[in-house]
Amino acid sequence: MVIQKEIVLRPRPRGFHLISGEIFPAVPEIKKIKAGIMNIFIKHTSASLTINENVSPEVRTDMENYFDKLVPDALPYFEHTLEGPDDMSAHIKSSLLDFSLTIPITNGEPNLGTWQGIFLCEHRNYGGARKLVITVYGE
Amino acid sequence: MVIQKEIVLRPRPRGFHLISGEIFPAVPEIKKIKAGIMNIFIKHTSASLTINENVSPEVRTDMENYFDKLVPDALPYFEHTLEGPDDMSAHIKSSLLDFSLTIPITNGEPNLGTWQGIFLCEHRNYGGARKLVITVYGE
Amino acid sequence: MVIQKEIVLRPRPRGFHLISGEIFPAVPEIKKIKAGIMNIFIKHTSASLTINENVSPEVRTDMENYFDKLVPDALPYFEHTLEGPDDMSAHIKSSLLDFSLTIPITNGEPNLGTWQGIFLCEHRNYGGARKLVITVYGE
Repeated sequence: MVIQKEIVLRPRPRGFHLISGEIFPAVPEIKKIKAGIMNIFIKHTSASLTINENVSPEVRTDMENYFDKLVPDALPYFEHTLEGPDDMSAHIKSSLLDFSLTIPITNGEPNLGTWQGIFLCEHRNYGGARKLVITVYGE
Repeated sequence: MVIQKEIVLRPRPRGFHLISGEIFPAVPEIKKIKAGIMNIFIKHTSASLTINENVSPEVRTDMENYFDKLVPDALPYFEHTLEGPDDMSAHIKSSLLDFSLTIPITNGEPNLGTWQGIFLCEHRNYGGARKLVITVYGE
Repeated sequence: MVIQKEIVLRPRPRGFHLISGEIFPAVPEIKKIKAGIMNIFIKHTSASLTINENVSPEVRTDMENYFDKLVPDALPYFEHTLEGPDDMSAHIKSSLLDFSLTIPITNGEPNLGTWQGIFLCEHRNYGGARKLVITVYGE
């Protein structure tokens, strides 16, 4: 069985955002899957996905601060500057994080660890709505 | 055909550890698969997975030293400090590396390059046992 | 349906290279797939894959410059030095980027964002030809 859906996440401010609650309810059909996989893909190059700790908001703040220092906006040697100071840094952060996440489905539920949540990593100051493709396959 | 198993890796010290020999024997059913995919997922946010060179132990040492410098423990601006100095750094390293690996299966064997091995990246000083979910699908 | 092919990319200079045009034509069978997934796996530990902006060549240059500074060749503490100054740095960059990409297939086409392309990240000065395994599954 293959289930595939495209969803649109509302615009978010720059930073790391917990979106598990928008992903899993979008594919209620996973309840029928005993064993399988879910792939979540982001159709952008200046926002990305990751998994991380889903309880403490400080984790999201620390991630944002860390990645902003690791890949500063407007590095002096950047040549790709036309789309603003936060664009090339956003491309690099996206490649350091993930464009797609693949997670197991077991007995109709995402089989994540207790503290694992899905994060949208918005790297632009005004990134707008973000499109995801969710593909589930299993039996 | 979908095969799914959960395995538990024994506790390891902080560092990068070659675990190919614990992954593949756990799913002997892959011998029946002519073409497919294996997904290996770690159910934690302070340990991660990657693929790298499987012969030289120096590669694992250099990786550990590099990532420890890239993401130092207890950075002064971290707000998520309750679980100790190696916790927030572990979360960040996990997002820089991988929570899940997807590798091809061909003619009943993992179709990796000659020098590729699966690494457990243990980012905590005392991380404990680590749970993985292995999902294989193919025909 | 599972489709699996191994392809060989011609040797490229160190840097980031757009290879979408070599990936998708290699699996024309995806035209038959209404909904599914494509996994692209690189069988090496000193070259990697990522997705990024597919129009501006400056993005590829900026990525190369950024990653060369993030992971300098021949760091003084590296112990794995036998294969040259660009070898250990190549291993680390590969783990920071991706060994495999999983992208959705929808209505017979890769369902990427408008500006998304597949990059080969060649981290060695003389890396030689690079082998990829492409696996597609769907219905």
